[in-house]
Amino acid sequence: MSTEQYRSDNAGALRIADVGRIVQLAGWIDRRRDHGGVVFVDLRDASGLIQVVFNPDSYPNDEQTISELRLEYCITVTGTIRERPEGTRNPNVITGEIEVVAESLMILGSSAPLPFQLNDRSDTEEIRRLEHRYLDLRTERMQRNLQARALTARAMRHTLEGMGFLEVETPTLISSTPEGARDMLVPSRLRPGTFYALPQSPQLFKQLLMIGGVERYYQIARCYRDEDFRSDRQLEFTQLDIEGAFWTQNDVLEAVEKIITAVVRDVRGIELTTPFPRISYADALERYGSDKPDARFGMEIRDLSQLFAGTDFRAFAGVLSAGGAVRGINAGAMNLRRSALDALIDRAHELGAKGLVWVVVQDDGSLRSPVTKHLSEEEQTAMVSALEANPNDLLLIVAGPQKLVESVLGQLRLDLGIPKGHQELSFLFVVDFPVFETTDEGDLVPAHHPFTAPVDIEELRSHPETALSRSYDLVLNGSELGSGSVRIHDPEIQAEIFEILGIAPEEAYTRFGWFLEALKYGTPPHAGIAIGMDRLISILQEEPNIREVIPFPKTQSGADPLTGSPARVADLQLKELGIELDPEVRKAWEDEPS
Amino acid sequence: MSTEQYRSDNAGALRIADVGRIVQLAGWIDRRRDHGGVVFVDLRDASGLIQVVFNPDSYPNDEQTISELRLEYCITVTGTIRERPEGTRNPNVITGEIEVVAESLMILGSSAPLPFQLNDRSDTEEIRRLEHRYLDLRTERMQRNLQARALTARAMRHTLEGMGFLEVETPTLISSTPEGARDMLVPSRLRPGTFYALPQSPQLFKQLLMIGGVERYYQIARCYRDEDFRSDRQLEFTQLDIEGAFWTQNDVLEAVEKIITAVVRDVRGIELTTPFPRISYADALERYGSDKPDARFGMEIRDLSQLFAGTDFRAFAGVLSAGGAVRGINAGAMNLRRSALDALIDRAHELGAKGLVWVVVQDDGSLRSPVTKHLSEEEQTAMVSALEANPNDLLLIVAGPQKLVESVLGQLRLDLGIPKGHQELSFLFVVDFPVFETTDEGDLVPAHHPFTAPVDIEELRSHPETALSRSYDLVLNGSELGSGSVRIHDPEIQAEIFEILGIAPEEAYTRFGWFLEALKYGTPPHAGIAIGMDRLISILQEEPNIREVIPFPKTQSGADPLTGSPARVADLQLKELGIELDPEVRKAWEDEPS
Repeated sequence: MSTEQYRSDNAGALRIADVGRIVQLAGWIDRRRDHGGVVFVDLRDASGLIQVVFNPDSYPNDEQTISELRLEYCITVTGTIRERPEGTRNPNVITGEIEVVAESLMILGSSAPLPFQLNDRSDTEEIRRLEHRYLDLRTERMQRNLQARALTARAMRHTLEGMGFLEVETPTLISSTPEGARDMLVPSRLRPGTFYALPQSPQLFKQLLMIGGVERYYQIARCYRDEDFRSDRQLEFTQLDIEGAFWTQNDVLEAVEKIITAVVRDVRGIELTTPFPRISYADALERYGSDKPDARFGMEIRDLSQLFAGTDFRAFAGVLSAGGAVRGINAGAMNLRRSALDALIDRAHELGAKGLVWVVVQDDGSLRSPVTKHLSEEEQTAMVSALEANPNDLLLIVAGPQKLVESVLGQLRLDLGIPKGHQELSFLFVVDFPVFETTDEGDLVPAHHPFTAPVDIEELRSHPETALSRSYDLVLNGSELGSGSVRIHDPEIQAEIFEILGIAPEEAYTRFGWFLEALKYGTPPHAGIAIGMDRLISILQEEPNIREVIPFPKTQSGADPLTGSPARVADLQLKELGIELDPEVRKAWEDEPS
Repeated sequence: MSTEQYRSDNAGALRIADVGRIVQLAGWIDRRRDHGGVVFVDLRDASGLIQVVFNPDSYPNDEQTISELRLEYCITVTGTIRERPEGTRNPNVITGEIEVVAESLMILGSSAPLPFQLNDRSDTEEIRRLEHRYLDLRTERMQRNLQARALTARAMRHTLEGMGFLEVETPTLISSTPEGARDMLVPSRLRPGTFYALPQSPQLFKQLLMIGGVERYYQIARCYRDEDFRSDRQLEFTQLDIEGAFWTQNDVLEAVEKIITAVVRDVRGIELTTPFPRISYADALERYGSDKPDARFGMEIRDLSQLFAGTDFRAFAGVLSAGGAVRGINAGAMNLRRSALDALIDRAHELGAKGLVWVVVQDDGSLRSPVTKHLSEEEQTAMVSALEANPNDLLLIVAGPQKLVESVLGQLRLDLGIPKGHQELSFLFVVDFPVFETTDEGDLVPAHHPFTAPVDIEELRSHPETALSRSYDLVLNGSELGSGSVRIHDPEIQAEIFEILGIAPEEAYTRFGWFLEALKYGTPPHAGIAIGMDRLISILQEEPNIREVIPFPKTQSGADPLTGSPARVADLQLKELGIELDPEVRKAWEDEPS
């Protein structure tokens, strides 16, 4: 067997029509069975798998080599394709009608005993799988995830190329970026004591491209965000970044619909209906208690404040007279026991509500609830009607400050209603975001980066707490996939916005002076969006977390259990960069074995 | 005019068939001419440009707005397409038969006076253009470069997808990589005092993908290299990275031929001939005096040592008896004056040669040269024959140690023969590289990274200075575009190679222990290559340096004159990362105004 060829065919591509051909295959041993001297091996390669038979009659090699074969050995085999005998065919495998009768064998790479069973992940801790990610990647599940990731990028690019977009690479060694999270820094060796930042997004560079006459820009860009990890965050992540000059909000949303439709068609084989629903931020909060509503199911929040305007029930009356709200959801026929209902009340407390009123509609239409006695006949009827309740339905009502009521009911709605998996895909846009969000402490903080165009700058000055911006989010099944906006293209308005957002002129000049300068040279109106690839792909693949669709992810502490990064480096190397370890950190290191 | 639409058509797409249509266009003012009250404006957008006429009769707006229009103002115009009057058509512009008679106008973005003339770069220093890169990008030249870059990536991806390659993203926050240059570091905030490295290449991750059963991998990857800048280097750069399992060297070279052929077809409209020539490293040095030969022209080096074996000319005889070589090139009919010939001798000295012998073939076939008198009739005839010399040809001969002779003649060959521009494209592969290169000091240093497979490990042990590796370079017009190899896939051989290359076992374990572990689990034979995008595109675009094809490049000192990176950062931010400035650096900062 020449070392200059390892295979003639892909295992998964062989069919009954190939019977009689002599083929050379290469791959891994997926399964091995001995039947009285005859050894059956499932040989797996990237295309699929096929059964190989080592029969003492037809196989002249020494039995020694065959006896060595273990799971995940990498081998190359030459043999003849034959039809499997009646009764031994396997209809579950696409090559199940045939097998390869081996005539020669070479072990290309032997395998140490596996640290875990490849095709039984349930028993394996994630950290073990990440330590040996290369083994995990051999599983069908991870191969499918890698393929879905590649298909997603490809569908995006093909769609955008068809729409005349130009792929442009923006730098990743930049100066500080305007987003909220911390920048990751890269010390410069040529100018010791100075630092590059890794981009949180290509935001300002894509705006520069618009100023530069690139009217349709896209990039699948690596971005960096130094946040304390949540389960679905990574220090580095990938986003599809697009921007268009002479573009309106609607142009952006229509482009996104085309891109997403193509991705879902290629990855899931589903034809989405467009346009995707557009829901205002205010509506989303009112109906779903969330600015990223999961619209796969109803259970919408209804306002009952009017209905209880004259109630004698003190808990509701007190809230309403203090300017609060009474709202409820119809959770449907849940048939919960008393203990489960009590657990819901605990959950509402945990979410910050003073209490939760549950009401079950009985077969005769009457209501069972701890508070029935406080509610008038009319109120009960009106409530049933407002929540479109039928017998057996569970109604949940919360009273309190409006924002709190929305968030508590929004979360209870998800707790009770969210479907398992992601078989159905509900894309929507949330539009008409406010410029400012109010924190729990009552402070106004900008809801978006400072390059977002307000709907009306005069309105923003006079009523900052309610003024709207030209921004929008793409939401899928309750997850925010992307965020974008029409940008400010007038340098004077940009300077004003910095001021209104509380960025002092000196700070604005230091951080963004070069950008204000750029805006002065005939900047076109422009708008865009960025869509996170990792979350989109994890939802399309029905994976519980994004690490499953990232080839080599970090753990939640930002570590790579495979390569051991991040790691200590030599003092000499730091010296070249004009930095040294903080003495406290060094001391802690020295006290700890390396 | 609604602010919700900026244009109905692209300027460059309008034709005579559109006459009579009312269109809305948006773009920049490329030129402006006044003819007695009538103002002509060339409106430019990404698609091209068209003439717009502001005629006081048909244009009802106030003249004030028109008089404000200056170069590079961004405007939107509505008007009617009409045929240009006879005698005013412009055959040099694709829209030159028509013009737009403006009916309304809106300034979308005014422009400050331009810091330089956009379409006359000759007068503008590069640093000025980089400070205002967004203006430079508006020029036709830069727009074409951006398009060529996008087309290159697209042709690569389409070709690779057609060949069944899977695009996989590898991490960019990694542990130290094995390449020669310095790593750029990223301090970790979650584990203060530790650092990620930015990848010099995805080398080990793509090898892990091969172990992980991804049989055909590609990625257009951002990589980082902290070297002192040469004119064609950047801290960050982009490469096409490919790797295949069960692959031989020839599989890699054929894949590269397919990719490059597609790129050159799409970007230059040229159909390349395949296979590209394969030249061994030894041949390349012997014939071209370079391991990246420019084969657009001949002027090959010929060995004259045999011919002068018995010479009476002391300079040659001495060199030959010391084991050196006498070699020459035929530079063709150069008609150089004596002063130019003297300059060649100076150049040879500068390149390290003891001297240079020039010989001019005269019309009658006799030789003119300072050394003719020392050479016998036979030697003269044999030299003319060996160098295939014709009347008027200039022959250049160097004697000395073989390596020096090769490099001096190789450089003189380039000085004299290299064509201007890159109209012709000469791709070739250099193969059969040695494992070690000998430095000028006579030390053996590894020519490639330590994962490169040797042709024969026994040969490597017994004759390290001449042993060959399974590595290869892609060369275009004398520039190395890419480098690759068959990799070691046996963990024991990998450990041996570390030892032979002088990497101590502890160091190998610390840096690559996890990789040696990975190799143990049924690693397939694999091979690959990485091709630098920046240099490829700059040559295809006939640009003198790669900065012209990088949207936002750094200067040679690693600075971005546009955004001011790299920059100082707050001490507090460093503290969070467990580092502080080197006191000397801080002192230097404090002595200098910020």
